[in-house]
Amino acid sequence: MSLLTESQCDALDVVLVSPRNPLNIGAAARAMANFGFRRLAVVAPYAPMWREARSAVGAPEILLQAAETATLGEAVAQATLVVGTGTLTYRKPEQRVVALPDLAPLVAREMAHGGRVAMVFGPEKSGLTRDDLSYCHILVEIPTDARQPSMNLGQSVAVCLYELSARIDSVGVTDGPKPSPIPDAPLSSAPSGHLDLLAGVVEETMQASGYSPRAMRAANRHDLRLLLRRIGLQERDLRRILGLFRHILWRLRPAPEGGKRAN
Amino acid sequence: MSLLTESQCDALDVVLVSPRNPLNIGAAARAMANFGFRRLAVVAPYAPMWREARSAVGAPEILLQAAETATLGEAVAQATLVVGTGTLTYRKPEQRVVALPDLAPLVAREMAHGGRVAMVFGPEKSGLTRDDLSYCHILVEIPTDARQPSMNLGQSVAVCLYELSARIDSVGVTDGPKPSPIPDAPLSSAPSGHLDLLAGVVEETMQASGYSPRAMRAANRHDLRLLLRRIGLQERDLRRILGLFRHILWRLRPAPEGGKRAN
Repeated sequence: MSLLTESQCDALDVVLVSPRNPLNIGAAARAMANFGFRRLAVVAPYAPMWREARSAVGAPEILLQAAETATLGEAVAQATLVVGTGTLTYRKPEQRVVALPDLAPLVAREMAHGGRVAMVFGPEKSGLTRDDLSYCHILVEIPTDARQPSMNLGQSVAVCLYELSARIDSVGVTDGPKPSPIPDAPLSSAPSGHLDLLAGVVEETMQASGYSPRAMRAANRHDLRLLLRRIGLQERDLRRILGLFRHILWRLRPAPEGGKRAN
Repeated sequence: MSLLTESQCDALDVVLVSPRNPLNIGAAARAMANFGFRRLAVVAPYAPMWREARSAVGAPEILLQAAETATLGEAVAQATLVVGTGTLTYRKPEQRVVALPDLAPLVAREMAHGGRVAMVFGPEKSGLTRDDLSYCHILVEIPTDARQPSMNLGQSVAVCLYELSARIDSVGVTDGPKPSPIPDAPLSSAPSGHLDLLAGVVEETMQASGYSPRAMRAANRHDLRLLLRRIGLQERDLRRILGLFRHILWRLRPAPEGGKRAN
């Protein structure tokens, strides 16, 4: 058993959504360094806490080089597999749920196909919101005792990264049960940002075609985001569908004044 | 996959040796609760820190009920398998080293044979001393990046307990590769405290027989402790050897004045 290669480690982003406690931010960064991961993104951090975490004595390089984005969509735009974390005790999941001990083969497959993976962790008190979760292809659950299901943020990051580091071997095949001889296709080869681009065009089309009444727009957007992740679009599927919707949209819109539409 | 049964959880002690940071003590207790473990022992804690950890708002039940001992020997006296943790980057191990992903089958086997397991964690800065390690049957290493091998105490406890909880199933057989049809004997069925009792009698015998010069006593004691754990004594072996050494010792000592020795 060996740790992952540098290129495998760099194919994974740890994304913290609105972390509050500087100690937890530091602990997450330390766990990343322990297991060789380097790419940290922080979404809409609380500014004073974030400053404090980064200015702590001995703050790891990872914190100083962390990306900072306003939205989760931006933070995971390059990822082809977005994994949401957290307890499902109080939630009804809207997508596939994988127990952490079963996650490594999915991540290994994604990396072996040149994909990028984002592990997304929510704020300490409340966890990821329903809207955050709609950016996730799958949810991962750390199996915990029902009497105390909620883990500390830094510990949760450590446990997830340990599991991936220990159970994906450095050539991309997991330990344990042998993979089938013909590797499955990855869940999706389309980066999250491209899915959002398509979702935007589909949404515009819904409106232009009168499909989506104003009161339903937020719900439709949410469902569309989940759907696009569930069906596992490949990049070339995505380009075709995008082309189709752009074409439809162009036909639906009134021709500009004095303009003329090609047939 | 399911969590361990209550009796499996109660066959494992988490032992913290001289922890310093109340936040780490709290984090260790929280990780225990997350994975269903309940038995915590603290060895020679720094009194003010220990008081602070226990009096923290919302301090878990586990902290309030933790055992407190002066020495590691006492804390692990009931354990038949004592597992030392920590990075081996700066140490030359004196006993068998197991990577954490390979630990579950050993612990499962011990539990299936009615044994007790102690997972021992050292102080934050320095880790377990060579003397502490001499109480351990095996050492476990969490595979980490060579550039940042040292883990935070609370995260290290979480990772170890997650691994055991996830990879020992609730009837005592590990997931993954099937165990051989005839289960191996456990490493040792003799509790650590009984080994120490034997070690004491052997040491007395060494002195009574003139084997152990004063200058060598500490080194001999250390080596003996390691040896007794390495050879995997069963309880009945231990009773026999203890009987033999007591007999030798009785013969070696000068007969009391006016007394008479049976032949």
